[in-house]
Amino acid sequence: MQQALDLVRSSHNSYIEELKTYLAIPSISSDPGSKGAMIECANHTAKLLRDAGVENVKVNKTPGHPVVTGDWLHANDSPTVLIYGHFDVQPVDPLDLWEHDPFKAHIKDDRIIARGSADDKGQLFMHIKAVEAILKSTGRLPVNVKFLCEGEEEIGSPSLPGFLKDNIDHLRADVVVVSDSSMLAEGMPAITYGLKGLTYLEIELTGPNRDLHSGTFGGVVANPAEILARLLASVKDENGRIMIPGFYDRVIGLSDSERKLIARVPHDEEKYRADLGVEELWGEAGYTSFERAWARPTFEVNGIWSGFTGSGAKTVLTAKAYAKVSSRLVPDQAPDEIIELTERFLTERAPRSVKIKITRFHGGRPVVTPLDSPYIKAAEQALSESYKHEVYFIREGGSIPIVADFKTILGLDTLLLGYSLPDARTHSPNENLHLPTFFTGIESLVRTWYYFVK
Amino acid sequence: MQQALDLVRSSHNSYIEELKTYLAIPSISSDPGSKGAMIECANHTAKLLRDAGVENVKVNKTPGHPVVTGDWLHANDSPTVLIYGHFDVQPVDPLDLWEHDPFKAHIKDDRIIARGSADDKGQLFMHIKAVEAILKSTGRLPVNVKFLCEGEEEIGSPSLPGFLKDNIDHLRADVVVVSDSSMLAEGMPAITYGLKGLTYLEIELTGPNRDLHSGTFGGVVANPAEILARLLASVKDENGRIMIPGFYDRVIGLSDSERKLIARVPHDEEKYRADLGVEELWGEAGYTSFERAWARPTFEVNGIWSGFTGSGAKTVLTAKAYAKVSSRLVPDQAPDEIIELTERFLTERAPRSVKIKITRFHGGRPVVTPLDSPYIKAAEQALSESYKHEVYFIREGGSIPIVADFKTILGLDTLLLGYSLPDARTHSPNENLHLPTFFTGIESLVRTWYYFVK
Repeated sequence: MQQALDLVRSSHNSYIEELKTYLAIPSISSDPGSKGAMIECANHTAKLLRDAGVENVKVNKTPGHPVVTGDWLHANDSPTVLIYGHFDVQPVDPLDLWEHDPFKAHIKDDRIIARGSADDKGQLFMHIKAVEAILKSTGRLPVNVKFLCEGEEEIGSPSLPGFLKDNIDHLRADVVVVSDSSMLAEGMPAITYGLKGLTYLEIELTGPNRDLHSGTFGGVVANPAEILARLLASVKDENGRIMIPGFYDRVIGLSDSERKLIARVPHDEEKYRADLGVEELWGEAGYTSFERAWARPTFEVNGIWSGFTGSGAKTVLTAKAYAKVSSRLVPDQAPDEIIELTERFLTERAPRSVKIKITRFHGGRPVVTPLDSPYIKAAEQALSESYKHEVYFIREGGSIPIVADFKTILGLDTLLLGYSLPDARTHSPNENLHLPTFFTGIESLVRTWYYFVK
Repeated sequence: MQQALDLVRSSHNSYIEELKTYLAIPSISSDPGSKGAMIECANHTAKLLRDAGVENVKVNKTPGHPVVTGDWLHANDSPTVLIYGHFDVQPVDPLDLWEHDPFKAHIKDDRIIARGSADDKGQLFMHIKAVEAILKSTGRLPVNVKFLCEGEEEIGSPSLPGFLKDNIDHLRADVVVVSDSSMLAEGMPAITYGLKGLTYLEIELTGPNRDLHSGTFGGVVANPAEILARLLASVKDENGRIMIPGFYDRVIGLSDSERKLIARVPHDEEKYRADLGVEELWGEAGYTSFERAWARPTFEVNGIWSGFTGSGAKTVLTAKAYAKVSSRLVPDQAPDEIIELTERFLTERAPRSVKIKITRFHGGRPVVTPLDSPYIKAAEQALSESYKHEVYFIREGGSIPIVADFKTILGLDTLLLGYSLPDARTHSPNENLHLPTFFTGIESLVRTWYYFVK
């Protein structure tokens, strides 16, 4: 183990250069124009795996973007770990808020800044380098590993469930390890034991059959932009509680013991608030910030647009109004049911003066992983030794729908080891990965594989 | 008079060709990139006036776009008419809903379709051609005329009040005539005796200091898009009544006699509804459609935008949310007061979790012109003879702020003779002018000038 850790420590500069090359590929899975970049990124991922000593590396076709697989299976009688990561990234808009080209990584204040640095190319890269360091320094791994790298996580992994089903035998393992989440803070490692589910809808309201002069027709015909505002405003009451009938029916409430566990996690509410630049935090009444973020379901407007949005004044009463909305779910809410309840709520409240059309996007089930898994214990030891700090057990507001699929299709629990920091700006301009955390994280992964067989 | 009318009738084809050339100039006053087109359009307007026989034609510089003036003042002892029109046009977006290039006029179903065809280049062009027909056929006009053609009507005429004040002596007249409104229907002439005023605001809400991951931060921090929806939804109650305190305080209610006058105007509510393509009309309870459109103040959302508006799903909780909103005012509401009441309402209701910034755009006072003016009587006769139909007296929901300035600065009442049709799609894609109405309208203007001195 020590040889591998030494190799990691002497390879920092080459890691940075290799990661920069990886981050330069604009692998935006949602952009129809990025098909070529997605193939390039899959091939590059395969090359990184082969260079690391991973065997049977393959770029697998799917109905969408490719899945890259590879394995090293010579640790007889040791457990088999399925390492999952994704090499696709979020869109980059608003582009003008990036300090530099999002696909030309640059380093500032110990951070590497680029789209995908934290979510998730950077963290997938850490896994590849941990395996590489062990293989190059010792010639063999303490555990068996299988890599599963997908290119559709940011669009809801439409092809992966089918790929899992078609390759159940090939993907047989003892546990899944995913690094696509964050530490609690710099130097404070965390293992995530819960993830929220997701539903995502687009609402389209149509009023008149054309844009109208707001003087001639204002006050006579319903304005879709106004109706949309009313509909969205009706979703929550003044205490932030979601008014969709049945929305909370299957929610497992927070137990006193879990509230205590959450309260134990260090959290400077004032610093958190100040970092976000708001006068006050806001959300469902009766819960702390972490309880809301981790264990309470939410409803958010992700986008809204209607009418004239250019500079200046245009007196138009527009024909169309649109919104994108999503809910984050907690056990045991079911995405399909929440979609139906939300659609019914919006459709019933839309007045006859407008037509409403709702389009469904990807969703995902919420998951919670048992805290008594031996693999979680091994990872806890590896993380606490590497970062020299106790490990916290947290839940996350984000969604990794595929983690639910690992349970349902492969029957596997997932160990979530996150290495981005809370201000990594994932999904936002100037996404970044903290380099000291990144280097120590590779060491912690090396230790994890050794402690799996201790 | 008959010679002039004959000349109009024999000039239809050349009118169309000349109007097409005029409409080809993309004179969008709100577009900073159209400065050159605005100057070109002013020069072209001046050329049309000179070619018509108007004297002392001048392109006057202003702090904004030019004002074009000219006159013909040889009708001793006859009244002097100040003819106002504007040669600037609205923006053309959404461009993809236009059947053809908005600046390449084409003719379909007896209509000339292009931006500015109805609002207001086409109607200004009618005035120029009426004067030209009289001067070319008889050598002299029955009245004195002064032309005042501006290029900033669609951005609120910021330079015109100053121009009026600087040229009070030069613009002395007996009445103003403006053709920037519509007929009641094809073949049904109307004189507009009331116009609404306008206020226009842009609302900017700022929540967190950056776009956030809606999973990690949803439910913890207020979402500006949601707050904006709540603010806009709070402006009206379920009966369409505006809830801004004091908003209705100065509104002159509809008298029974005026309600009867409005009810006399032919109106097929079912056809009107069907033409708009809505299941039902909607607005302030207790008033008919025309009462709402003509004589009740309104509040409309003209634009709203926030967050992710591209294709696909992006799970962002965005930092900013924007809306453009406007109110149409009726006598005696004062724009400045309504702006203040609206700003106070929105600011007081914005929670501490967001910052609110409000930008004021142009406004205008509402006007109502006395129905017993002798000029209105003359125009009524000219219109009824030309269109062979009784003339209706109507009000309009649109705003021509400059009409209030004519009263305040020049002491003049304004005669509003409108020649666009209700489905002229002003401010919308496929704006159009009905050619038979246009040709007959030029004749009606010829007659109007003769009946002014009858």
